[in-house]
Amino acid sequence: MKHHSFPEAPKTGVWLIGARGSVATTAVAGAAAVRAGLVPPTGMITATPDFAGAGLPELDDLVFGGHDVTDVPLLKRAEQLAEAGVLPTRLLLPVHYALQEADREIRRGAGHDRAGPAQAEIAASLVADLVSFRERHHLRQVVVVNVSSTEPRQPPHPAHDDLAALEHALATETAVLPPSSLYAYAALRAGCAHVDFTPSPGARIPALHQLACQEGLPYAGNDGKTGETLVRTALAPMFVHRALRVRSWSGTNLLGGGDGATLADPDAAAGKTASKRSGLSALLGGPFEGTTHIDYVPSMGEMKTAWDHITFEGFLGAAMSLQFTWQGCDSALAAPLVLDLARLMARARELGASGPQEQLGFFFKDPVHLPGREHDHRLVAQYEALRAWYAEAGR
Amino acid sequence: MKHHSFPEAPKTGVWLIGARGSVATTAVAGAAAVRAGLVPPTGMITATPDFAGAGLPELDDLVFGGHDVTDVPLLKRAEQLAEAGVLPTRLLLPVHYALQEADREIRRGAGHDRAGPAQAEIAASLVADLVSFRERHHLRQVVVVNVSSTEPRQPPHPAHDDLAALEHALATETAVLPPSSLYAYAALRAGCAHVDFTPSPGARIPALHQLACQEGLPYAGNDGKTGETLVRTALAPMFVHRALRVRSWSGTNLLGGGDGATLADPDAAAGKTASKRSGLSALLGGPFEGTTHIDYVPSMGEMKTAWDHITFEGFLGAAMSLQFTWQGCDSALAAPLVLDLARLMARARELGASGPQEQLGFFFKDPVHLPGREHDHRLVAQYEALRAWYAEAGR
Amino acid sequence: MKHHSFPEAPKTGVWLIGARGSVATTAVAGAAAVRAGLVPPTGMITATPDFAGAGLPELDDLVFGGHDVTDVPLLKRAEQLAEAGVLPTRLLLPVHYALQEADREIRRGAGHDRAGPAQAEIAASLVADLVSFRERHHLRQVVVVNVSSTEPRQPPHPAHDDLAALEHALATETAVLPPSSLYAYAALRAGCAHVDFTPSPGARIPALHQLACQEGLPYAGNDGKTGETLVRTALAPMFVHRALRVRSWSGTNLLGGGDGATLADPDAAAGKTASKRSGLSALLGGPFEGTTHIDYVPSMGEMKTAWDHITFEGFLGAAMSLQFTWQGCDSALAAPLVLDLARLMARARELGASGPQEQLGFFFKDPVHLPGREHDHRLVAQYEALRAWYAEAGR
Amino acid sequence: MKHHSFPEAPKTGVWLIGARGSVATTAVAGAAAVRAGLVPPTGMITATPDFAGAGLPELDDLVFGGHDVTDVPLLKRAEQLAEAGVLPTRLLLPVHYALQEADREIRRGAGHDRAGPAQAEIAASLVADLVSFRERHHLRQVVVVNVSSTEPRQPPHPAHDDLAALEHALATETAVLPPSSLYAYAALRAGCAHVDFTPSPGARIPALHQLACQEGLPYAGNDGKTGETLVRTALAPMFVHRALRVRSWSGTNLLGGGDGATLADPDAAAGKTASKRSGLSALLGGPFEGTTHIDYVPSMGEMKTAWDHITFEGFLGAAMSLQFTWQGCDSALAAPLVLDLARLMARARELGASGPQEQLGFFFKDPVHLPGREHDHRLVAQYEALRAWYAEAGR
Repeated sequence: MKHHSFPEAPKTGVWLIGARGSVATTAVAGAAAVRAGLVPPTGMITATPDFAGAGLPELDDLVFGGHDVTDVPLLKRAEQLAEAGVLPTRLLLPVHYALQEADREIRRGAGHDRAGPAQAEIAASLVADLVSFRERHHLRQVVVVNVSSTEPRQPPHPAHDDLAALEHALATETAVLPPSSLYAYAALRAGCAHVDFTPSPGARIPALHQLACQEGLPYAGNDGKTGETLVRTALAPMFVHRALRVRSWSGTNLLGGGDGATLADPDAAAGKTASKRSGLSALLGGPFEGTTHIDYVPSMGEMKTAWDHITFEGFLGAAMSLQFTWQGCDSALAAPLVLDLARLMARARELGASGPQEQLGFFFKDPVHLPGREHDHRLVAQYEALRAWYAEAGR
Repeated sequence: MKHHSFPEAPKTGVWLIGARGSVATTAVAGAAAVRAGLVPPTGMITATPDFAGAGLPELDDLVFGGHDVTDVPLLKRAEQLAEAGVLPTRLLLPVHYALQEADREIRRGAGHDRAGPAQAEIAASLVADLVSFRERHHLRQVVVVNVSSTEPRQPPHPAHDDLAALEHALATETAVLPPSSLYAYAALRAGCAHVDFTPSPGARIPALHQLACQEGLPYAGNDGKTGETLVRTALAPMFVHRALRVRSWSGTNLLGGGDGATLADPDAAAGKTASKRSGLSALLGGPFEGTTHIDYVPSMGEMKTAWDHITFEGFLGAAMSLQFTWQGCDSALAAPLVLDLARLMARARELGASGPQEQLGFFFKDPVHLPGREHDHRLVAQYEALRAWYAEAGR
Repeated sequence: MKHHSFPEAPKTGVWLIGARGSVATTAVAGAAAVRAGLVPPTGMITATPDFAGAGLPELDDLVFGGHDVTDVPLLKRAEQLAEAGVLPTRLLLPVHYALQEADREIRRGAGHDRAGPAQAEIAASLVADLVSFRERHHLRQVVVVNVSSTEPRQPPHPAHDDLAALEHALATETAVLPPSSLYAYAALRAGCAHVDFTPSPGARIPALHQLACQEGLPYAGNDGKTGETLVRTALAPMFVHRALRVRSWSGTNLLGGGDGATLADPDAAAGKTASKRSGLSALLGGPFEGTTHIDYVPSMGEMKTAWDHITFEGFLGAAMSLQFTWQGCDSALAAPLVLDLARLMARARELGASGPQEQLGFFFKDPVHLPGREHDHRLVAQYEALRAWYAEAGR
Repeated sequence: MKHHSFPEAPKTGVWLIGARGSVATTAVAGAAAVRAGLVPPTGMITATPDFAGAGLPELDDLVFGGHDVTDVPLLKRAEQLAEAGVLPTRLLLPVHYALQEADREIRRGAGHDRAGPAQAEIAASLVADLVSFRERHHLRQVVVVNVSSTEPRQPPHPAHDDLAALEHALATETAVLPPSSLYAYAALRAGCAHVDFTPSPGARIPALHQLACQEGLPYAGNDGKTGETLVRTALAPMFVHRALRVRSWSGTNLLGGGDGATLADPDAAAGKTASKRSGLSALLGGPFEGTTHIDYVPSMGEMKTAWDHITFEGFLGAAMSLQFTWQGCDSALAAPLVLDLARLMARARELGASGPQEQLGFFFKDPVHLPGREHDHRLVAQYEALRAWYAEAGR
């Protein structure tokens, strides 16, 4: 196991919002285990031959830090994940040091309910954390990835539409931006690429788009595609390309863990089901019946189960159906994507990309894209788009 | 409803091997119902905007005929299909005339057990049927589509490797070619494009490939992709593109109807499961555990059910699973593909295509391709390949 | 086919509330088809050897009538059911006469929104309909079965607790009883046994219980067990008897048809999900996680699909799961139970039973029972209880 | 944790054939963990209030030993089971001593292929092991439970029909009895009650029945009901009691672990599928279509998955279906039943029971019963039969 001290070439920082959560802990522990050769990099597409070759920062060259609003040490979280069957117990010891290293780089984040100072002041403190992280480690750059819980929907604020208006409002008000967007604002202000792995607005606010373009910084998101929607974007093209008419598409998601608890709040769930439905509608290209539920089942822990039932019509009106049940481990699905995204965004930034990174739509339920463009949600098409971008980027 | 007499422009013939079966009857009845505007062309990809534009023969311009070894009138078969829920009862009357027309064009086919004459003699009679059909109707061309039941595997014959040797053997022997290949031979000898919708060898014999190339005729196949394999080729890329390791892929198919009865014979089923497995192996690109069963459940009639259970491994070895249940109506899934294939093959031939038509792999479990080429079995990739060919062909 | 004119022995009346609905139409048409020997009595437990022997009125001896608030003729409804695949088309003609006969005996029912007269007046008119039916046909007795749609929950009225208070309120007020209870009141006032096949309150109001006991009339209900709950009461004892701890039991029901539309209203659905949950809680005997959804999917028509997912814990805390998918035809499941219930209730009444008929709990999601008694919801136990009662009753 | 030395009252021995397998190891470790209060006795029906009261030997009073043909230490097996997720890692240390104790009591068993001595000689050595175990520990009695792998079917031997003939043959021949029956013979000869948890013949040979009756010893079996068949016996009565006609019942079982490997051998699987089918046929009481597969999927480890698909017919011939997927942990399902059976058989023997113990049919796929009797396979009926016996036994 290498201990990465005294690096010679500059490394890349990965700053995780929600750094003490399951996904972040799994990403940090997993990166260490893969680096040490203890497990294969299963689930990381940047470790496949399609993404080999020059360009991406190596896992060895990633340094982790982040913000969080809780204090649970990463080692404790890792033990909980081992108990829950996500992290093999035998890895706890070997990844111990890497978790401690990351733990030291976690700073207190911006809570939802900070009644106190104006948001500009909070943002300045977040920016300072990022800059300090970059400078202390002599990092080439820092990629910020938001892996925190889904936040409740917030009413839009008139200052969202314009950067100048936004900065003016932030200077005096305390609830201009939802937390996800305040983090995104701080990331961009600190000169960092930003990835939103949650369905929260994050950088998807006109004023922040303006800021990203002005600063020449890329952003990507939203809402990591790790289960039901992943399967949907693989399956839906089958109906469309075979000219079969989907009558109904119904889904029920059973979630335990932190995300389940958050989504038991109908407000938070609303953001999630909206991002789930938007891709499916775009794929099917027409109206269909059916509801998608997200149910909180605490005893499921880190596992999540999705059941989808699709009725469709074939030649001469024949009624047919397809149903699937997906049983996945949430953090184990999300964590490798976080590592992939950090590596790909770092590369995108080096290549000078700025604004929404649509070629990363493969990773998301509700991909960012330039206004007026239609995103092709078909999973295979998204993969080919990413590969084509990479082939270009790799030159 | 138009009655297609006294056509002015030459029409295209569609000659179905197994012309009295469920798939053929559904294709003939369905084409008539769509032409009459009684049902939308659901399930026919050539009726979607992606395939609009010049080039394909219209449904109105197709004339149906075929070979079969049974005598059940098409009207009777249509009534059975109405009883089984495939053909809406209200369509029986409107498609009556079209079924009768096709019925008059069905000739006695070449049975499996003809002990009598040398196969060259049988082939000559099949060729004569095809030529007579083309001439009587002043057809522009005839496309032969084999929709008969899966035939038992037959041992290879040394004459299969060379056209001259084949013709020599056919002249005196009675069991050189399996029926599917004898039909393909006759089709090519009669100057017809040939499509194999079954897993049987058909034109996939070196000597027949030689004949097709020599005569400048296209052929396509094999084994229409209408259920479990359709879903598999949509789903498998998800695992591959996400770098998730498939540990096992198990499947059970419950079939009633004629195909189920045929496949209750392990010899016939062997061909089917081999063609099912080959695509999945190519897609996953590595070894995986699991068995695929085909069970005959007579009471399921025209419906078929497939259950697939997939276990896979994610980051840090996390064990996850996906299962799906597909409930489809076999003939309603196959018939529109038969119409699509007839139209696309007619166009391919007009464009001078000869030999295996790989761009039609979208329709098949085990697509024909030039030796040494790897076929991309991903459903979306197959669709895009077909669309690209068509865009080129449409010019 | 017998046409039942000029009966010699008195017949039994079956008066259906919701007489023009799918369930009622299927019951009337099906009874005629079974009587005529055109179909076997599949789904009718009173046609099995366990319930043979003296005592139950024959199907031949049932006369159908009822109340409804719509005017669609039964023949029209039967055609719709044939289109939807519930009633085989070939039966339409042979059951034609029986449907017409029943159609003539359907009277305008008491709508939900009758703003006009006091409820006592409406009840008097309902009673008159029942008495007239009984007298015109010289019926031995009439069994009233409510097969109408689930009604929205209504706030309790203080007069529900006492018969005298109830009658006093009915005399002047217009919204004392919900429709289901007004029908039950009328049935009991007309001297009829009453069965509630819906989750609506019906006879389950203390004042009506008082009335039934006072008049010596039996009543049964509530909410016919025809799908998810049927399976649940078969499966749940497995976990309990094997000492396996159920952690969560989640369910999603996809319904088309009239019931689905009604249950799309959360108020109506509340009654349904409450009656579903109560039995399961009683069976499992302890707390469990999970939610049960009822979704309206109009295109599913008469079919309904239920998916249940159960997680449970075994020895040493091992986590296991069971899931099932039920695909049923609602009316085909309910109609034979309606015939069974009419026959069994007629017999119960002849034997002098009065008050709640707990031995019929086999048919219901939420069985009526005497206060203070615990109902054994296990399906097999319910069956044995019914059989034991019948063995006693048959003597 | 108690260490059970110097017992005052005589204890009960539990002698496991296949004592080093997953089921045996889980039973021994689990009994220790339950005794120590570290886990609740989930899955043990004898720990529920229905079986409370005097009579059964306490878990504290069980002493474990057994035969096996392998040498893997129990501690090693326990570690493997912890790795496979059956045994919680935190229990390994506390159950350490109990596993060592049991390990010391395991003797070399009778292999399948012992070409050497006549079977009488082997039997004598097995008997000596049992007697020595009983005497060394001053045991009140020893219950023998066969939890070894399913053995391949063996042709019947003419000596199976009569005890005298059997003993004569054993004296000189080397392959009279299959191993499972040789163990049963030895158990009975050593004066022990015998339970067969496998589908192998065991004591179900006329000559052994004769021996059991002659010696006044009880025997029970066969084939522990721990998954698909458990669900089937819960579900099948639903169809029967509702007079729904089952058309087909198809099943696919995916097994890893030792049992999966054994059952990959078609000969061994034949015994298993026969015992699975027999109960279902008895329950449904008539013919039905469908096949049951057992597939070996090594990567599933200790988990097993069963998918069953049932098509059935309701009123007016309506076609409906039910499917379920069971995911269970084999050893965690079997081990508590082994403990239950040991306790119940010890009690049965104390009460003087001899011959087949039909009241234990609740635990088995293919329950032993007296010739000419029909066993009621309904799970709830089996439970009630056991409870009734126990109520009687408890007096």
